[in-house]
Amino acid sequence: MNYFSSDFKLGILGGGQLGKMMLTDTRKFDIQTYVLDPSDEAPCKIGSNKFFKGDLMDFDTVYNFGKQVDVLTFEIELVNIPALEKLEAEGIKVYPSPKTLNLIQNKGTQKDFYAQHNIPTAEYKRFDNLDALKEAVANGAFSFPFIWKSTEGGYDGNGVKVIRSAESFNGMPNVQCIAEVMIPFKNELAVIVARNPSGEIKTYPVVEMEFHPEANQVEYVICPARIDDAVANKARAIALKVSEHFNHVGLLAVEMFQTEDDQILVNEVAPRPHNSGHYSIEASYTSQFEQHIRAILDLPLGNTDSKVAGIMVNLVGAEGFSGNVVYENIEKIIGMDGVTPHIYGKKQTRPFRKMGHVTIVNEDIAEARRIAAEVKNTIRVIA
Amino acid sequence: MNYFSSDFKLGILGGGQLGKMMLTDTRKFDIQTYVLDPSDEAPCKIGSNKFFKGDLMDFDTVYNFGKQVDVLTFEIELVNIPALEKLEAEGIKVYPSPKTLNLIQNKGTQKDFYAQHNIPTAEYKRFDNLDALKEAVANGAFSFPFIWKSTEGGYDGNGVKVIRSAESFNGMPNVQCIAEVMIPFKNELAVIVARNPSGEIKTYPVVEMEFHPEANQVEYVICPARIDDAVANKARAIALKVSEHFNHVGLLAVEMFQTEDDQILVNEVAPRPHNSGHYSIEASYTSQFEQHIRAILDLPLGNTDSKVAGIMVNLVGAEGFSGNVVYENIEKIIGMDGVTPHIYGKKQTRPFRKMGHVTIVNEDIAEARRIAAEVKNTIRVIA
Repeated sequence: MNYFSSDFKLGILGGGQLGKMMLTDTRKFDIQTYVLDPSDEAPCKIGSNKFFKGDLMDFDTVYNFGKQVDVLTFEIELVNIPALEKLEAEGIKVYPSPKTLNLIQNKGTQKDFYAQHNIPTAEYKRFDNLDALKEAVANGAFSFPFIWKSTEGGYDGNGVKVIRSAESFNGMPNVQCIAEVMIPFKNELAVIVARNPSGEIKTYPVVEMEFHPEANQVEYVICPARIDDAVANKARAIALKVSEHFNHVGLLAVEMFQTEDDQILVNEVAPRPHNSGHYSIEASYTSQFEQHIRAILDLPLGNTDSKVAGIMVNLVGAEGFSGNVVYENIEKIIGMDGVTPHIYGKKQTRPFRKMGHVTIVNEDIAEARRIAAEVKNTIRVIA
Repeated sequence: MNYFSSDFKLGILGGGQLGKMMLTDTRKFDIQTYVLDPSDEAPCKIGSNKFFKGDLMDFDTVYNFGKQVDVLTFEIELVNIPALEKLEAEGIKVYPSPKTLNLIQNKGTQKDFYAQHNIPTAEYKRFDNLDALKEAVANGAFSFPFIWKSTEGGYDGNGVKVIRSAESFNGMPNVQCIAEVMIPFKNELAVIVARNPSGEIKTYPVVEMEFHPEANQVEYVICPARIDDAVANKARAIALKVSEHFNHVGLLAVEMFQTEDDQILVNEVAPRPHNSGHYSIEASYTSQFEQHIRAILDLPLGNTDSKVAGIMVNLVGAEGFSGNVVYENIEKIIGMDGVTPHIYGKKQTRPFRKMGHVTIVNEDIAEARRIAAEVKNTIRVIA
């Protein structure tokens, strides 16, 4: 198949920042792209060969879009899966497959999948609704505190809650859910795995999420994770196993806990380029976005090693500011060594809205970490 | 000035591959771009915020385009300079300045400029036309062989010829020209200098052009050049001096000869991102394209050091093939370690047409050079 400067068309469902960063590489390779997104102001409107406005959850919209392309992928999981199934049945290549997407989209079936394949994960129980969970708790099947997760529709921390007492149930939706044992963990880690249809498979180095000591919010994604090699190797082996069992094609970001006794437990996966891999644009031989394209087009995978250490800081809207965005002090952080801001192109900021990210690269990871703190203390996303 | 996700507009004259690679960084920073190019199939049609089709040599077209933007730059020097002068006089920031462009565009005034500022360059003489040069030769003012250069319109080796005997004059145009002493050189080197309006200035490492042993064609651009540190430092110092004397804003690529006795002579300059800096996308902390944007927007300049060694191979159309391009064996080179092709997006190939380039990065420059040879022997641009 000739992808380069040819009539070949890659379709992307979703036109947000992940799609935008993919387009950097489709432009580099001159691969034609069609993008579908509900917003007329989607970042992918610029940089795609053809942009379509439409509802990603609507069967006809997704189906009609997909019929125009040769390979179809997505940058967001909340898409109409029956349309993907029909497209796949009619010969369009859909990567990752709707079958995998079905398994992953429901956190209950995702957890069952780990259990079936002996993939270590925190103990859990599935419930048809909140009432059933409450009853189980009343019967002593679960003791406080534990984690509640809505099985569907969760995103970026939505649909997840720590249940410390029966009062926590107040105001919660009566939907299908899981209850999960709360794991005391040392580190939250992630590994991105790439796999192509021919079965070639590679893992990126383990990254570490460093949390704010008080706010319980991820502040830095650090590559490589500052952990023992033995733990890192275990994490990469488990991530590899997860991707293989899913028969996954494309990228799979595997989020994991490192427990107090150095066990690795899989938390959840995302079947696409992921926030935890943004550092790779500047730090890796092959960025996660280029790797995703290589994988779904069944091209050989690129080297996943790093050239230098990389740290990522998210740029989110500051509290108390809504309106036309201003990146206060961005010219100051640009002057720091090895600092690259990525601005996603959203005109309006809101508190905690993801507006961009900043990558800090350096030969010395401690120096990168020092500069990352300076970046975080300097730039502010205001209006 | 707020450039990021704002109403600020950067204008780019020329929409070819250099512009296309600049757009990667304007998209990353979400800086609005307007691009003017005569071709409706220009690579910058995708990735710019607004694309205008028009003649770059036409006064009104360039002037009317320029009036819509805040800062104006170019990716090709063959543009209407009087229009740039008028725009500058009316308060539009034009970088590099039309004054510099005027000096550089004519190889005669460029050489005079070096002579005036004690910048080492090969001895030369200016002539109003070919007849005047012939007369000087007849009078013994120049002995064969020497180099003839047309003072205007030369590009990529056009307008340059080695004159070995009076017969070489046959069929040559009777235009303004210079005659230059032929320098026996060890190496052809280049240094890219970045300078912003505030006067901050940085040089990239010296790169080396490795020629094919028989064909006298550049085969590899290698960074860092495999030369003594003392010679490299001298080359960077001279490049710095050239940029400072021009009061240059933006990138200046300074091409130089290293003579048999390790003198550095300036050959010529290009006031823009340059083929000799393409390696920087993968190898440097700051790519030349991002650096150009930083410079013309008076932002702090980025680190010009390399993360790893980088080698660039041009992808030009193979002899004997014209028509719809096919990149034969591209999937094979993609499978080699640290290899990234850049496909410019021209649909039609012709013999020797620049269709793209390939970068090879590696910690070990000898290994990079070995892989670069493999890349060159594997990929073919055919129809």
